[in-house]
Amino acid sequence: MKPDNIIEKFSEVTEYWSPKIIAEVNDSYVKIVKAKGEFVWYNHEEEDELFYIIKGEFILKFEDSEIKLKENDFYIVPKKINHCPVAKEECWVMVIEKKSTKHTGDLITDITKDIQQQLR
Amino acid sequence: MKPDNIIEKFSEVTEYWSPKIIAEVNDSYVKIVKAKGEFVWYNHEEEDELFYIIKGEFILKFEDSEIKLKENDFYIVPKKINHCPVAKEECWVMVIEKKSTKHTGDLITDITKDIQQQLR
Repeated sequence: MKPDNIIEKFSEVTEYWSPKIIAEVNDSYVKIVKAKGEFVWYNHEEEDELFYIIKGEFILKFEDSEIKLKENDFYIVPKKINHCPVAKEECWVMVIEKKSTKHTGDLITDITKDIQQQLR
Repeated sequence: MKPDNIIEKFSEVTEYWSPKIIAEVNDSYVKIVKAKGEFVWYNHEEEDELFYIIKGEFILKFEDSEIKLKENDFYIVPKKINHCPVAKEECWVMVIEKKSTKHTGDLITDITKDIQQQLR
Protein backbone atom coordinates (compact mmCIF):
# COMPACT_ATOMS: atom_id res chain seq x y z
CA MET A 1 0.00 0.00 0.00
CA LYS A 2 1.32 3.39 -0.98
CA PRO A 3 -0.19 6.75 -1.79
CA ASP A 4 -0.29 8.23 -5.27
CA ASN A 5 1.12 11.65 -6.06
CA ILE A 6 -0.85 14.00 -8.25
CA ILE A 7 2.24 15.68 -9.73
CA GLU A 8 3.58 12.29 -10.84
CA LYS A 9 0.19 11.47 -12.32
CA PHE A 10 0.30 14.67 -14.38
CA SER A 11 3.62 13.53 -15.84
CA GLU A 12 1.72 10.64 -17.46
CA VAL A 13 -0.62 13.01 -19.30
CA THR A 14 0.62 13.87 -22.78
CA GLU A 15 -2.48 15.29 -24.49
CA TYR A 16 -4.33 18.52 -23.73
CA TRP A 17 -7.97 18.27 -22.63
CA SER A 18 -7.72 14.50 -22.26
CA PRO A 19 -8.97 13.65 -18.76
CA LYS A 20 -7.13 10.95 -16.82
CA ILE A 21 -8.99 9.22 -14.01
CA ILE A 22 -6.66 8.99 -11.01
CA ALA A 23 -9.06 7.96 -8.26
CA GLU A 24 -12.47 6.50 -7.66
CA VAL A 25 -14.25 7.49 -4.48
CA ASN A 26 -17.80 6.26 -3.99
CA ASP A 27 -19.75 7.23 -7.13
CA SER A 28 -17.29 9.95 -8.16
CA TYR A 29 -14.12 10.05 -10.20
CA VAL A 30 -11.18 12.32 -9.53
CA LYS A 31 -9.66 13.28 -12.87
CA ILE A 32 -6.68 15.35 -13.93
CA VAL A 33 -6.57 17.44 -17.06
CA LYS A 34 -3.77 19.36 -18.75
CA ALA A 35 -5.53 22.32 -20.29
CA LYS A 36 -4.30 24.65 -23.02
CA GLY A 37 -6.34 26.68 -25.45
CA GLU A 38 -10.12 26.68 -25.59
CA PHE A 39 -12.19 23.57 -24.86
CA VAL A 40 -15.80 23.30 -26.04
CA TRP A 41 -19.09 24.67 -24.73
CA TYR A 42 -21.00 22.02 -22.81
CA ASN A 43 -23.12 21.33 -19.75
CA HIS A 44 -24.28 18.41 -17.67
CA GLU A 45 -28.03 18.13 -17.24
CA GLU A 46 -27.91 16.45 -13.84
CA GLU A 47 -24.38 16.74 -12.49
CA ASP A 48 -22.21 19.38 -10.83
CA GLU A 49 -18.54 19.55 -11.75
CA LEU A 50 -15.72 20.75 -9.51
CA PHE A 51 -12.58 22.36 -10.93
CA TYR A 52 -9.53 22.75 -8.67
CA ILE A 53 -6.41 24.39 -10.07
CA ILE A 54 -3.13 22.61 -9.32
CA LYS A 55 -0.89 24.82 -11.48
CA GLY A 56 -1.38 27.76 -13.81
CA GLU A 57 -4.38 29.88 -14.67
CA PHE A 58 -7.77 28.82 -15.92
CA ILE A 59 -10.83 30.62 -17.21
CA LEU A 60 -14.39 29.38 -17.04
CA LYS A 61 -16.54 31.16 -19.61
CA PHE A 62 -20.27 31.30 -19.05
CA GLU A 63 -22.90 32.66 -21.40
CA ASP A 64 -22.91 36.12 -19.80
CA SER A 65 -19.72 36.22 -17.71
CA GLU A 66 -16.42 34.52 -16.99
CA ILE A 67 -14.30 33.76 -13.95
CA LYS A 68 -10.54 33.45 -13.64
CA LEU A 69 -8.99 30.80 -11.44
CA LYS A 70 -5.41 30.59 -10.27
CA GLU A 71 -3.42 27.98 -8.32
CA ASN A 72 -5.38 26.57 -5.35
CA ASP A 73 -8.63 28.16 -6.52
CA PHE A 74 -11.70 25.99 -7.01
CA TYR A 75 -15.15 26.46 -8.46
CA ILE A 76 -18.19 24.24 -8.82
CA VAL A 77 -20.12 24.57 -12.06
CA PRO A 78 -23.68 23.63 -11.15
CA LYS A 79 -25.64 21.21 -13.27
CA LYS A 80 -27.33 22.60 -16.39
CA ILE A 81 -24.98 25.61 -16.64
CA ASN A 82 -23.39 25.98 -20.06
CA HIS A 83 -19.66 26.63 -19.77
CA CYS A 84 -16.43 26.65 -21.77
CA PRO A 85 -13.03 26.12 -20.10
CA VAL A 86 -10.06 28.07 -21.45
CA ALA A 87 -6.37 28.17 -20.55
CA LYS A 88 -4.08 30.68 -22.25
CA GLU A 89 -0.99 28.76 -21.10
CA GLU A 90 -0.73 25.14 -19.95
CA CYS A 91 -2.75 24.68 -16.79
CA TRP A 92 -3.13 21.62 -14.55
CA VAL A 93 -6.62 20.99 -13.24
CA MET A 94 -8.18 18.45 -10.91
CA VAL A 95 -11.81 17.69 -11.73
CA ILE A 96 -14.28 15.91 -9.48
CA GLU A 97 -17.44 14.64 -11.08
CA LYS A 98 -19.81 11.70 -10.97
CA LYS A 99 -18.81 8.49 -12.69
CA SER A 100 -21.76 8.97 -15.04
CA THR A 101 -20.57 12.41 -16.20
CA LYS A 102 -19.50 12.72 -19.83
CA HIS A 103 -16.62 15.18 -20.04
CA THR A 104 -17.98 16.98 -23.10
CA GLY A 105 -21.59 16.64 -21.97
CA ASP A 106 -23.88 15.38 -24.73
CA LEU A 107 -21.59 16.84 -27.35
CA ILE A 108 -19.36 14.38 -29.20
CA THR A 109 -16.30 15.98 -30.78
CA ASP A 110 -12.84 14.96 -31.94
CA ILE A 111 -11.53 15.47 -28.41
CA THR A 112 -14.24 13.45 -26.66
CA LYS A 113 -12.79 10.52 -24.70
CA ASP A 114 -14.89 7.68 -23.36
CA ILE A 115 -14.41 6.38 -19.82
CA GLN A 116 -12.14 3.53 -20.93
CA GLN A 117 -9.81 6.06 -22.55
CA GLN A 118 -9.90 8.20 -19.40
CA LEU A 119 -8.97 5.19 -17.27
CA ARG A 120 -5.72 4.55 -19.19
CA MET B 1 -19.27 34.92 -9.29
CA LYS B 2 -15.79 34.25 -8.08
CA PRO B 3 -13.75 31.17 -7.22
CA ASP B 4 -12.79 30.19 -3.70
CA ASN B 5 -9.19 29.62 -2.68
CA ILE B 6 -8.33 26.62 -0.57
CA ILE B 7 -5.42 28.33 1.20
CA GLU B 8 -7.71 31.20 2.27
CA LYS B 9 -10.27 28.65 3.48
CA PHE B 10 -7.61 27.02 5.66
CA SER B 11 -6.98 30.39 7.31
CA GLU B 12 -10.53 30.19 8.67
CA VAL B 13 -9.83 26.88 10.43
CA THR B 14 -8.71 27.36 14.02
CA GLU B 15 -9.21 23.92 15.55
CA TYR B 16 -7.34 20.69 14.79
CA TRP B 17 -9.34 17.75 13.44
CA SER B 18 -12.41 19.93 12.96
CA PRO B 19 -13.53 19.42 9.34
CA LYS B 20 -14.77 22.47 7.44
CA ILE B 21 -17.01 21.87 4.43
CA ILE B 22 -15.79 24.10 1.60
CA ALA B 23 -17.71 22.70 -1.35
CA GLU B 24 -20.67 20.56 -2.25
CA VAL B 25 -20.51 18.65 -5.49
CA ASN B 26 -23.35 16.26 -6.29
CA ASP B 27 -23.74 13.98 -3.25
CA SER B 28 -20.22 14.63 -1.94
CA TYR B 29 -18.66 17.21 0.31
CA VAL B 30 -15.16 18.58 -0.06
CA LYS B 31 -13.79 19.26 3.41
CA ILE B 32 -10.57 20.70 4.74
CA VAL B 33 -8.94 19.60 7.96
CA LYS B 34 -5.99 20.95 9.92
CA ALA B 35 -4.46 17.84 11.45
CA LYS B 36 -2.03 17.61 14.34
CA GLY B 37 -1.49 14.70 16.71
CA GLU B 38 -3.44 11.46 16.57
CA PHE B 39 -7.10 11.33 15.58
CA VAL B 40 -9.28 8.33 16.49
CA TRP B 41 -9.71 4.85 15.01
CA TYR B 42 -12.82 4.66 12.86
CA ASN B 43 -14.29 3.32 9.64
CA HIS B 44 -17.24 3.91 7.37
CA GLU B 45 -19.36 0.85 6.68
CA GLU B 46 -20.52 1.95 3.23
CA GLU B 47 -18.35 4.88 2.16
CA ASP B 48 -14.87 5.44 0.75
CA GLU B 49 -12.90 8.46 1.94
CA LEU B 50 -10.27 10.35 -0.07
CA PHE B 51 -7.38 12.15 1.63
CA TYR B 52 -5.33 14.65 -0.39
CA ILE B 53 -2.43 16.43 1.27
CA ILE B 54 -2.21 20.19 0.67
CA LYS B 55 0.68 20.88 3.07
CA GLY B 56 2.76 18.86 5.50
CA GLU B 57 3.00 15.16 6.22
CA PHE B 58 0.26 12.75 7.19
CA ILE B 59 0.15 9.15 8.32
CA LEU B 60 -2.73 6.74 7.86
CA LYS B 61 -2.49 3.90 10.34
CA PHE B 62 -4.24 0.64 9.53
CA GLU B 63 -4.58 -2.39 11.74
CA ASP B 64 -1.53 -4.11 10.29
CA SER B 65 0.33 -1.37 8.43
CA GLU B 66 0.63 2.37 7.87
CA ILE B 67 1.29 4.69 4.97
CA LYS B 68 2.96 8.08 4.91
CA LEU B 69 1.64 10.87 2.71
CA LYS B 70 3.39 14.09 1.79
CA GLU B 71 2.30 17.20 -0.11
CA ASN B 72 0.28 16.38 -3.27
CA ASP B 73 -0.09 12.73 -2.27
CA PHE B 74 -3.55 11.20 -2.08
CA TYR B 75 -5.02 7.95 -0.85
CA ILE B 76 -8.50 6.47 -0.79
CA VAL B 77 -9.42 4.52 2.32
CA PRO B 78 -11.99 1.99 1.11
CA LYS B 79 -15.22 1.47 3.01
CA LYS B 80 -15.11 -0.84 6.06
CA ILE B 81 -11.35 -0.37 6.58
CA ASN B 82 -10.45 0.67 10.11
CA HIS B 83 -7.97 3.56 10.11
CA CYS B 84 -6.44 6.22 12.33
CA PRO B 85 -5.03 9.47 10.88
CA VAL B 86 -1.93 10.94 12.51
CA ALA B 87 0.10 14.11 11.87
CA LYS B 88 3.31 14.71 13.82
CA GLU B 89 3.32 18.39 12.83
CA GLU B 90 0.45 20.52 11.56
CA CYS B 91 -0.77 19.16 8.24
CA TRP B 92 -3.43 20.50 5.87
CA VAL B 93 -5.66 17.88 4.30
CA MET B 94 -8.47 17.95 1.76
CA VAL B 95 -11.04 15.20 2.31
CA ILE B 96 -13.67 14.08 -0.19
CA GLU B 97 -16.48 11.97 1.14
CA LYS B 98 -20.21 11.46 0.75
CA LYS B 99 -22.57 13.91 2.43
CA SER B 100 -23.82 11.05 4.56
CA THR B 101 -20.35 10.25 5.94
CA LYS B 102 -19.80 10.86 9.65
CA HIS B 103 -16.22 12.06 10.15
CA THR B 104 -15.59 9.84 13.17
CA GLY B 105 -17.66 6.97 11.78
CA ASP B 106 -20.10 5.54 14.31
CA LEU B 107 -17.84 6.64 17.15
CA ILE B 108 -18.95 9.74 19.05
CA THR B 109 -16.11 11.48 20.90
CA ASP B 110 -15.29 14.93 22.25
CA ILE B 111 -13.95 15.91 18.85
CA THR B 112 -16.95 14.72 16.84
CA LYS B 113 -18.58 17.54 14.86
CA ASP B 114 -22.00 17.26 13.27
CA ILE B 115 -22.61 18.47 9.73
CA GLN B 116 -23.98 21.84 10.87
CA GLN B 117 -20.73 22.47 12.75
CA GLN B 118 -18.71 21.41 9.69
CA LEU B 119 -20.67 23.85 7.50
CA ARG B 120 -19.68 26.89 9.61
